[in-house]
Amino acid sequence: MSKIKISMSQINTTVGSLDSNTKKIIEKIKKAKKENSNVICFPELSIPGYPPEDLVLSDLFIKNNIQALNTIKKHTKNIIAIVGFIDKDINGIYNSAAILNNGNIIEIYRKTKLPNYGVFDEKRYFNSGSKVVVIQKNNIKIGISICEDIWDDYEICKLQSNYGCNLLININGSPYDIDKKQTRIKHLSSVSKNCNAHLVYLNLVGGQDELIFDGSSLVFNNLGNIIYSLPSFEEKDGIIDLDLDLNFNEPNKTLITNLKKYNLSVKEIDFQYMNTKERNRVLDITKINEIEDVYKALVLGTRDYLIKNKFNKCLVSLSGGIDSAVVTAIAAKAVGSKNIVTVNLPSRYSSDHSITDSEKLCKNLGIKLINLPIEDAHKSMEDSLNFIFKNTKKNVAEENLQARIRGNIIMTISNKFSLLVLSTGNKSEIATGYATLYGDMAGGFSVLKDVPKTMVYKLANYINKVSDNYTIPINIINKPPSAELKPDQVDQDKLPEYEILDKIIELYVEKKQNIKEIMSNKILRKKISNDEILDIIQMIDRNEYKRRQSPPGVKITPLAFGKDRRYPIASELKYTYTKFIYYDK
Amino acid sequence: MSKIKISMSQINTTVGSLDSNTKKIIEKIKKAKKENSNVICFPELSIPGYPPEDLVLSDLFIKNNIQALNTIKKHTKNIIAIVGFIDKDINGIYNSAAILNNGNIIEIYRKTKLPNYGVFDEKRYFNSGSKVVVIQKNNIKIGISICEDIWDDYEICKLQSNYGCNLLININGSPYDIDKKQTRIKHLSSVSKNCNAHLVYLNLVGGQDELIFDGSSLVFNNLGNIIYSLPSFEEKDGIIDLDLDLNFNEPNKTLITNLKKYNLSVKEIDFQYMNTKERNRVLDITKINEIEDVYKALVLGTRDYLIKNKFNKCLVSLSGGIDSAVVTAIAAKAVGSKNIVTVNLPSRYSSDHSITDSEKLCKNLGIKLINLPIEDAHKSMEDSLNFIFKNTKKNVAEENLQARIRGNIIMTISNKFSLLVLSTGNKSEIATGYATLYGDMAGGFSVLKDVPKTMVYKLANYINKVSDNYTIPINIINKPPSAELKPDQVDQDKLPEYEILDKIIELYVEKKQNIKEIMSNKILRKKISNDEILDIIQMIDRNEYKRRQSPPGVKITPLAFGKDRRYPIASELKYTYTKFIYYDK
Repeated sequence: MSKIKISMSQINTTVGSLDSNTKKIIEKIKKAKKENSNVICFPELSIPGYPPEDLVLSDLFIKNNIQALNTIKKHTKNIIAIVGFIDKDINGIYNSAAILNNGNIIEIYRKTKLPNYGVFDEKRYFNSGSKVVVIQKNNIKIGISICEDIWDDYEICKLQSNYGCNLLININGSPYDIDKKQTRIKHLSSVSKNCNAHLVYLNLVGGQDELIFDGSSLVFNNLGNIIYSLPSFEEKDGIIDLDLDLNFNEPNKTLITNLKKYNLSVKEIDFQYMNTKERNRVLDITKINEIEDVYKALVLGTRDYLIKNKFNKCLVSLSGGIDSAVVTAIAAKAVGSKNIVTVNLPSRYSSDHSITDSEKLCKNLGIKLINLPIEDAHKSMEDSLNFIFKNTKKNVAEENLQARIRGNIIMTISNKFSLLVLSTGNKSEIATGYATLYGDMAGGFSVLKDVPKTMVYKLANYINKVSDNYTIPINIINKPPSAELKPDQVDQDKLPEYEILDKIIELYVEKKQNIKEIMSNKILRKKISNDEILDIIQMIDRNEYKRRQSPPGVKITPLAFGKDRRYPIASELKYTYTKFIYYDK
Repeated sequence: MSKIKISMSQINTTVGSLDSNTKKIIEKIKKAKKENSNVICFPELSIPGYPPEDLVLSDLFIKNNIQALNTIKKHTKNIIAIVGFIDKDINGIYNSAAILNNGNIIEIYRKTKLPNYGVFDEKRYFNSGSKVVVIQKNNIKIGISICEDIWDDYEICKLQSNYGCNLLININGSPYDIDKKQTRIKHLSSVSKNCNAHLVYLNLVGGQDELIFDGSSLVFNNLGNIIYSLPSFEEKDGIIDLDLDLNFNEPNKTLITNLKKYNLSVKEIDFQYMNTKERNRVLDITKINEIEDVYKALVLGTRDYLIKNKFNKCLVSLSGGIDSAVVTAIAAKAVGSKNIVTVNLPSRYSSDHSITDSEKLCKNLGIKLINLPIEDAHKSMEDSLNFIFKNTKKNVAEENLQARIRGNIIMTISNKFSLLVLSTGNKSEIATGYATLYGDMAGGFSVLKDVPKTMVYKLANYINKVSDNYTIPINIINKPPSAELKPDQVDQDKLPEYEILDKIIELYVEKKQNIKEIMSNKILRKKISNDEILDIIQMIDRNEYKRRQSPPGVKITPLAFGKDRRYPIASELKYTYTKFIYYDK
């Protein structure tokens, strides 16, 4: 009989908050003991929070995180706890998992594969481990690993499988994007199958600046089938009851690996299995609803940014358009209608429906709307500038002026009442710079920063579908998008149809295609000229300076603006990226 | 006779601009040939520019950079050129130096040590090389390396020395900070001495976003003495004439290195030494004038940010204070008075001297000053907000309102006339958040972002010392610093004396000391209480969100805000960093 009961603690940690993370971990250990679990596991770097970034460059922070581990270990009588922390030796620091039992640290696993691409900078901080860790009791052989270790060629897991591990535990801080779940299920299924081992994949949940961790923890059997799962975007505990004799096969000794690089450490453990078999539940996670996930990601990301920055309330400026409506609905779900203040700041160019639609939205959500016309301020700013603007041609300056008066008003209200401003720009605008720096871009958190406009529409429809009444007035969804900064203005004066624009952004930004590849895209070729494509790509390149000053927002696509995409501002690439055109003379 | 003539091409490249960089490299090669040089060397990644960041993730960009290299090699008849470029194979890309001669690539050296700390992210992009490269002709044995290779234990150079190299050429993209020159001279002198080889240390010059490369290229003989140098912060060519038999010693075979990790490649070269001996000049670079260097760094950084972003003119908002005065003087030096527009935007709280002092400054610099009082706009913004602000207590909101009206006006003027706004905040303000987001922080480039207030005073005095008349009116230097956003306000209402504040910032930010260490600092202990120190550090921690939205500025200290310091925004560290205080219950 090779039975084991494992608690999976899919918790929401806070970066830097050693106290609150430690408290939460100890509470979960106590609960797991009551439930007769043999093992409890926590996400990657659960003590310091993930990703701790440059906080780990402080010796005191590392010392305190080890002190926290020593506090936690006292609570591990009769339970094995696997806890993420930062280990240290004379050579540097390590992203590690401590295996705690009966008040002792029985082993420490140090992450060997350190991601240093996309949003990750782990080689900036950590050294790689070189020890493969197994804990075992009779026929139960458990291999421990951390996040990236299980990806690519999963060398560590193969070594554990070669040794005979029939259970792999992999703890994670794996950020969400819309493609992630599919990718994980496919890859992890093949790992568990190839390694001929059960696999517990435990992931962090919660928002941290521009990242959102989705949880979505999974358990696979050694046939590669999902036998248990935890929900996405929710802090949640789970217990699984595994019989490792089930589907038992001989250990897979055929996996090719280079053991020489690593040392193998095997530690004996002991525990008492109690026959109170847990029903392993499986949510139907194979049918992924992309928009529902994005919605939940944005709600949790917004809520956590507010809470973790100690804000209770937020402020949204409503324009009558779809972006600010969707942001308000998301904020209402995140922190409750009573914690939201909305303002309507009409100018002389605002349509009547911009006000009535906003009023209707707020009525649906039970939010009070404050109306503050900006005409007087607008007029007096114009008068001040008239001295130097007379005899000049109107250009974007006059348009931005209004957006920045609004930016000033909402920031002043924010400062007065300690409200965090949620800015409302979407990815399509932020990509092309179709937004005013210090105007509509002003704010503490940019909810839709990584959401293309076409997806904003899908979100609006989803929000209406799941609400009792139509939360977002249909007129807001149906009207042509406009910044309303000059008479009869619509977005499509300057931008192509959003379907086309978002396709270009996807190819250029997310898929990193070059201009030649984009111009030969079959869908685009029918709908837009090469010159127009070039225009759009130049807009994207030229507006790096605006994005650099934009507030953070939740990453939901495979490649978001922010730490995921590090482009120079001063660069003449924008003038030469099509080809190398130096003419030899 | 082991004589060789080497051209050192300390050029200013532009990131992404393959065309202009290639053109410049070819021109320099042609010039070096006329001067009978045997070898010409260029800085690190001279073809793509440094640091190219995520541009290198484009296959097309890599392909074009190789095409540029193939264009350059055609110009290497009778000269050996060492050119920085990005090499590629099936495993990835490499930060490389091509050795070109007679139209051929005779060897490629791939950087082995990749910096991934501070401002550097090279492991995000590049693989490490594993080949040690030597080129030789009879008794002349030259070892090639790139930047980081020569630091720490300089393994590569030791291997080259073991082989018998009597000349090391190290090409660089080494960013400036105030401690860098001393550090370089000390370390490089010991490398050349220990390796018993002459050393040509060639560095890039120019500004790239928040980095400034100072040039300051050096040549050491095998006794560790400087025998040649190029100036700092200037694009400059130089020629040195070396006799490697001079001071000749037997190769140093005693250096301990692990050759097994590397392959050694030795290539024969040929050249004709012409007896037109160049006088090797040595600037007196051991006597470093810190403030002069900072001044030159800021001038070049400002000029290059403008030029490389295709701006001709800039805009500065003058407050009558020392920061905006110093920024204007730096801008005048960088791009000329005729390319600067200044505005004075007095409010009801502005002092008379704020206007008269600004007028005097502009007269001294020959710049026109536009006067635009903001009272009307201020009044009408207040009236608009009165509806929700009545019966509230005045707080920072009313102060920021004025700063943001100014921010709006300068951005509107910027948009109208295509002027790049130079913002004027200093490091002390940006560290503590004593600045208004979207107000005085608004702009395209933040000249003093990394300059502490106490150093701003030193810069003002330096500027006055080197100018014919007193450029910066003495009254601007002598008046107590004030934001003038409410009656009788001075900075020291909220901040300690700048001498003390800047010391705390130095210890906490630049030296990464923890609060315990700072509180025990002898200088501070006499002048400020522990509670006040705690306040300052909390201000620094809490204002990460503001800094994240600030424009880039030149790094001049060993640790600048920006890519050099990557702190989370949402982090409860600010509440717990003193100690781990979880009480076990």
